Amino acid sequence: MLDTFPATTRVVCLASRPAGEPGPENFGIGHQPITEPVPGQLLVRNVYMSVDPAMRGRMETTEKHYTTNFEVGGPLDGSAIGEVVAGDVDGFPVGCYVRHRLGWRDYALVDAATATVVDPDLAPLPDWLGILGQTGFTAYVGLVRTGGLREGDTVFISAAAGAVGSAAGQFAKLLGAERVIGSAGGARKAELLESQLGFDVGIDYRADLPGGLAAAAPDGIDLYFDNVGGEHLVAALHALRQGGRVALCGMIADLRSRADSPPIAHLIQATLKRLTIQGFIVRDHEDLRPEFERRVASWLRTGEVVSRQTITDGLENAADAFLSMLTGGNIGKALVRIGPERLS
Amino acid sequence: MLDTFPATTRVVCLASRPAGEPGPENFGIGHQPITEPVPGQLLVRNVYMSVDPAMRGRMETTEKHYTTNFEVGGPLDGSAIGEVVAGDVDGFPVGCYVRHRLGWRDYALVDAATATVVDPDLAPLPDWLGILGQTGFTAYVGLVRTGGLREGDTVFISAAAGAVGSAAGQFAKLLGAERVIGSAGGARKAELLESQLGFDVGIDYRADLPGGLAAAAPDGIDLYFDNVGGEHLVAALHALRQGGRVALCGMIADLRSRADSPPIAHLIQATLKRLTIQGFIVRDHEDLRPEFERRVASWLRTGEVVSRQTITDGLENAADAFLSMLTGGNIGKALVRIGPERLS
Repeated sequence: MLDTFPATTRVVCLASRPAGEPGPENFGIGHQPITEPVPGQLLVRNVYMSVDPAMRGRMETTEKHYTTNFEVGGPLDGSAIGEVVAGDVDGFPVGCYVRHRLGWRDYALVDAATATVVDPDLAPLPDWLGILGQTGFTAYVGLVRTGGLREGDTVFISAAAGAVGSAAGQFAKLLGAERVIGSAGGARKAELLESQLGFDVGIDYRADLPGGLAAAAPDGIDLYFDNVGGEHLVAALHALRQGGRVALCGMIADLRSRADSPPIAHLIQATLKRLTIQGFIVRDHEDLRPEFERRVASWLRTGEVVSRQTITDGLENAADAFLSMLTGGNIGKALVRIGPERLS
Repeated sequence: MLDTFPATTRVVCLASRPAGEPGPENFGIGHQPITEPVPGQLLVRNVYMSVDPAMRGRMETTEKHYTTNFEVGGPLDGSAIGEVVAGDVDGFPVGCYVRHRLGWRDYALVDAATATVVDPDLAPLPDWLGILGQTGFTAYVGLVRTGGLREGDTVFISAAAGAVGSAAGQFAKLLGAERVIGSAGGARKAELLESQLGFDVGIDYRADLPGGLAAAAPDGIDLYFDNVGGEHLVAALHALRQGGRVALCGMIADLRSRADSPPIAHLIQATLKRLTIQGFIVRDHEDLRPEFERRVASWLRTGEVVSRQTITDGLENAADAFLSMLTGGNIGKALVRIGPERLS
C-alpha cells in the first residue's frame, strides 16, 4: 500500500540548544522511514505547519515548562495541517484534511485521537492554523474569558501586528469594544494596524509607548491583552482605569526565559485601582472552542475578519521562518507551506 | 443642653507633611469649639480610635489617592467609636455607642448618616474597630471574595502579626484552609504567630523568606494574601501552585508611596502558572458585611477567634501610637483609648 509514498520523510531536528538567541545552527534536517499506519493511526502528508513563539522555550532548556521540551538530536513538532493519505480510522477518510501536532516533517504518522478533521470549504487551510486555530483561539480566550471583555471597553493589545495580536484586535471590535489600540515595532507596522487590521490607533512602541498610549486613550484603558510583559505591562498598569483587567497571554510566554523576565515596576497600581491580572493558557479553555469556531468562521465568511499570514515555502526553510517570526519579521500568522494542497 | 460638656475639644492636626518617614513633628494638637448638634447630627464623646497604615498616604501628598488627603493645619480623621452624648436622631439614642469616621479628637459632631450603632454586649468596643471592624472585614473580603479561598487551601499571609494579617490567619483556618503560613519581622513575632494566633508556621522574613516559605509549603501555596508587596510578592509568585491566587490588600497600600513601590520580578510566573493577581479595596464589598459580622461575632463568642490589640492611652499619644504601628511596634490592631467607656 505504501508503494505510492516515499520510503522516508524529511524531519527537522534540534541540532543543539541555543545559547541565548536561537540561530540556524540549532536546526538540522534528518530522515526517518515512513511506516505503515497501525489501527488508530493515520499517515498524513503535511501541507502547512505553524511556527510558534512557544517553540523557543521548548528548544532552550531541559527545565520543565508547561509543555514538553525538545531533545537534542530529536525531531521538532508543532501544529500542522495535512492530507490523510493512508489509514483506516472511522471519521478520517483518505483525502480529508486534519489538524494535528506533528509538523516539522513532510509525512507524519499521527494518532487519530490527537487529530481533528478540518473543512477546507468552511475556511482556507491556512486559517485553520491561524485565526481559526490555536492562534485565534488564544486571542478569543484572552479577550472573552480571561479579560472579561465588555461592551464599550477601551482595549490595548501589545504585539498587535503578530498572529495573536492581529486576531485579538479584530475580535475585540466585533465583540463590542469601543476603542482598540495596538502597539507594534516601527512606524510601518503601526500604520498597518490602522489601515489593514481595524485598530483605531496603532502605536510605534519604539518611538514613545507611554506617551502614545496616553494620547490614544486619554481616559485610560479597561483591558490590556498582554503579549510581551516588560515595559508594555508597566505602561498598561498606569493607563488602566479602576477595576481594569490584564490578560497575560501564555502563548508567547516562552519567548522570554524565566530569568530574563524583567521586573515589573508600579505593580502597586494593581491595588490602588483594584486591577485583576490573570495569566492564561489556552488549553485550559477547550470548552469555548465550538463557540469560537462558529463565530470566527462566520466573521471570515462575511469578511468582517481579515486573516493575515506570512507564508514561507518549503520545509527546508522552516527554521528561517521561525527565526524571522521571533524578530518580528511576520505580519499575522507565520506559516510554512510544506507541500501542495493536492498532489496532482 | 451643652452645659455639661466642655466648650472646646482637642483635635490632632497635620502640622506639616512628612518628607520621607513621618515623625512627631508632623502632628500638632489644636482646639475647636463644641457646637450644638443640628438635626441629623450627633455629638459623640470618643472612646477608642484606630490608627491605620492608610493614614500615611493621606498625610504625604496632595496627590489624589483612593480617599481624601489631609490638609496642612487641618484635623486628621479616622475610624473611632464613641458614646452619643447629645443629638435627637431616631435609632441613635443618647448613651448608645457609634462607630464613625471622626477620630483624632475628644468630641466629634457626627452626621448620623455616616455612623453605625455598635452593640457592646455582642463584642467589646475595641473589637468593633478591629476584628469586627474595617480591619477584620478587610481580611475577610481578601480571603473570601478576592482570594476565593477554598477548602483545603494552603494560604500564605504577609505582615501576619499585624491587624489585618492576624485576623486573616485565624479566618483562613476557620474557613477551611488546610495550612496557614504567616510571615512577620523577627523571631519573637514569628513564634507568636504559631503560639498565639493559630498559624501553622510563622516565618521570620528577616532571616530567610524564600527558604522559609519553601520549607513551610514544600508543595506550594494556593493563595497569597499580600499586605506588603515587594520581595514577599516575588517569593509568593515562586511558591504559588498552578491556578494560584494573590489578593493584593488595599488597606495597607498607602504605606508605600507610588514611587517607592519596588519592581516585581518574575511576574512571568503568573502566565506560566495561570495565576490570578487581584487588588481590592474593602469599600467595594459592603454587601459582604452582614455575613462577615454574623460569622466573626459568633467566632468571638465561642472563642474560636482571638482578637489582639495594642492599646495606647490618651489622645495626646495618638501620634506616637500611629508612628509605632508604622514600624511594626504593634501586635494585632493598634488603637488609642481616648476616654473611659462611661463617664461616672
